[in-house]
Amino acid sequence: MTTDLVAAVDIGGTKVAGALVDGTGDLLHRVQGPTRARESAENVLRAVTDVVTQLTEHELWHRVVAVGIGSAGPVDARNGTVSPVNIPAWREFPLVEGVRKTTGALPINLVGDGAAIAAGEHWTGAARGRSNALCMVVSTGVGGGLIVDGRLRPGPTGNAGHIGHISVDFNGDLCPCGGRGCVERIASGTNIARYALAAGWRPAEPDGDVTAAGVAAAAAAGDPIALAAYDRSARALAAGIAATATLVEIETVVVGGGVSQAGEVLFGPLRRALGEFATLPFVRNLEVAPAQLGTDAGLVGAAAACWSDPDTFLIRGEAGN
Amino acid sequence: MTTDLVAAVDIGGTKVAGALVDGTGDLLHRVQGPTRARESAENVLRAVTDVVTQLTEHELWHRVVAVGIGSAGPVDARNGTVSPVNIPAWREFPLVEGVRKTTGALPINLVGDGAAIAAGEHWTGAARGRSNALCMVVSTGVGGGLIVDGRLRPGPTGNAGHIGHISVDFNGDLCPCGGRGCVERIASGTNIARYALAAGWRPAEPDGDVTAAGVAAAAAAGDPIALAAYDRSARALAAGIAATATLVEIETVVVGGGVSQAGEVLFGPLRRALGEFATLPFVRNLEVAPAQLGTDAGLVGAAAACWSDPDTFLIRGEAGN
Repeated sequence: MTTDLVAAVDIGGTKVAGALVDGTGDLLHRVQGPTRARESAENVLRAVTDVVTQLTEHELWHRVVAVGIGSAGPVDARNGTVSPVNIPAWREFPLVEGVRKTTGALPINLVGDGAAIAAGEHWTGAARGRSNALCMVVSTGVGGGLIVDGRLRPGPTGNAGHIGHISVDFNGDLCPCGGRGCVERIASGTNIARYALAAGWRPAEPDGDVTAAGVAAAAAAGDPIALAAYDRSARALAAGIAATATLVEIETVVVGGGVSQAGEVLFGPLRRALGEFATLPFVRNLEVAPAQLGTDAGLVGAAAACWSDPDTFLIRGEAGN
Repeated sequence: MTTDLVAAVDIGGTKVAGALVDGTGDLLHRVQGPTRARESAENVLRAVTDVVTQLTEHELWHRVVAVGIGSAGPVDARNGTVSPVNIPAWREFPLVEGVRKTTGALPINLVGDGAAIAAGEHWTGAARGRSNALCMVVSTGVGGGLIVDGRLRPGPTGNAGHIGHISVDFNGDLCPCGGRGCVERIASGTNIARYALAAGWRPAEPDGDVTAAGVAAAAAAGDPIALAAYDRSARALAAGIAATATLVEIETVVVGGGVSQAGEVLFGPLRRALGEFATLPFVRNLEVAPAQLGTDAGLVGAAAACWSDPDTFLIRGEAGN
């Protein structure tokens, strides 16, 4: 058993989390801070380096052999840059270079947050032991990553498996990404709530929850509009998942994120809709599993992406030693 | 330079082609016969073994080290069986076992026809030197295969890259596969002609060509319905290609098949539509290239799938020696 550790960093639109992660996926020490996503590029980088600096000050830091970063995307792992949709000041921002000022000669492995989650669920979560899997998050957005032939396949730029922005409605509504009819544009929590409200749904209490969680509660109580909103989301997810299975031959799809907390309100119609869209013999037996790692998936996965692909991270990280 | 040869077999709905293929992709000896796709399972197998037997009778047969089969799909490379949509009597038909009776102890590698075409275009055609590519055929149907990280990725069952049956219109028309809004259901030659005729298009001559080729000629002459039919096909193809690029991070898409013979009538709107659907930074510079191997792609690729993946074919072929 190695005593080596990875310093994992998970950069989202709201918070930056960091942890020292051992070779079994345990988080030995955690730190966290706000992303300040609407501030200047330098201030957002400071939010990251503040977290990383706290990690470097821990007594176990001397055992750290690599830094794994999972970032809101799109990312460009080849160039070490990121352009997260929800961090406007970062466009082709040299994140790896910025972090290296704090971490010195350690190799740095950058992947998109979807790839990180897939690596995490494959290492210690719901995709463990699966050779080919899609791991996805359905939350305010929709993202994902791919396990192919037994290992994470982040793709050349670290964004592979980005299921939220494939079109399942080629004449559908414009998506903020510039595309049309994207899975995220139909299936995300934001769009579940938007659809329900536009169709006339209102929470029972005057100041009740008008997010996807509120719609889920109404659906569980039998509200027909709320049920229709989840059914529509589930059908768009199923079309995207079936497309992924047909293109990549996955055997398992792992679904996490806030919207998946609705449980059978989402998973029931999702399984039914997969029966409608995943029809060819080689995709018909697709396994659907809830995610197991929760909000730790990004941290565990940023470390897993390092452990699982040392060649790649040594090349990408340009350790310089 | 190896003197080893592969016996390649390409099984389509109309014809069975065979060839002895050398290590550079040259076809040294070809044979061909009708598939007799509507006949009994035994008769279709005889159509295949007739072709294979002719190959075994050639003076170069002693140099053959493996048999590569590309078959209309779906296939199941794990079990050596095929269930081609357009050969009704073959359902989970033990094709590898049937061919082995003619070829003896040689290893046999089975892939779907889409994977075969991808292997062929990657070996000696338009995807040569590309690390990540989708190679597809747009004809009476739509199929494809994937090159991932520099090599063919047929997937566990040999069907990966089956772009014709991903949905780009999740509320769209039912597809014969059982799905809804599949790329093939909108974009194939059959559906281009169907759409144009339903919208009132007629060929200039009373007995003129009412296939997609006839629609293409009308589109080239400026007929607005014919142009709309190709534009609709191109947009569905673009949505599917962009989805593949977003999921798998491909850099190149190679398009062949009868419908691609329309040239700019198809490629013009296809490139425009890719601008609409492939919007994220990591898919924005997708290269679109016409296929180079024509109808030989299946044969060259059935051989390429052998050469490119000897481990896999030795396992799958269960050479028994």
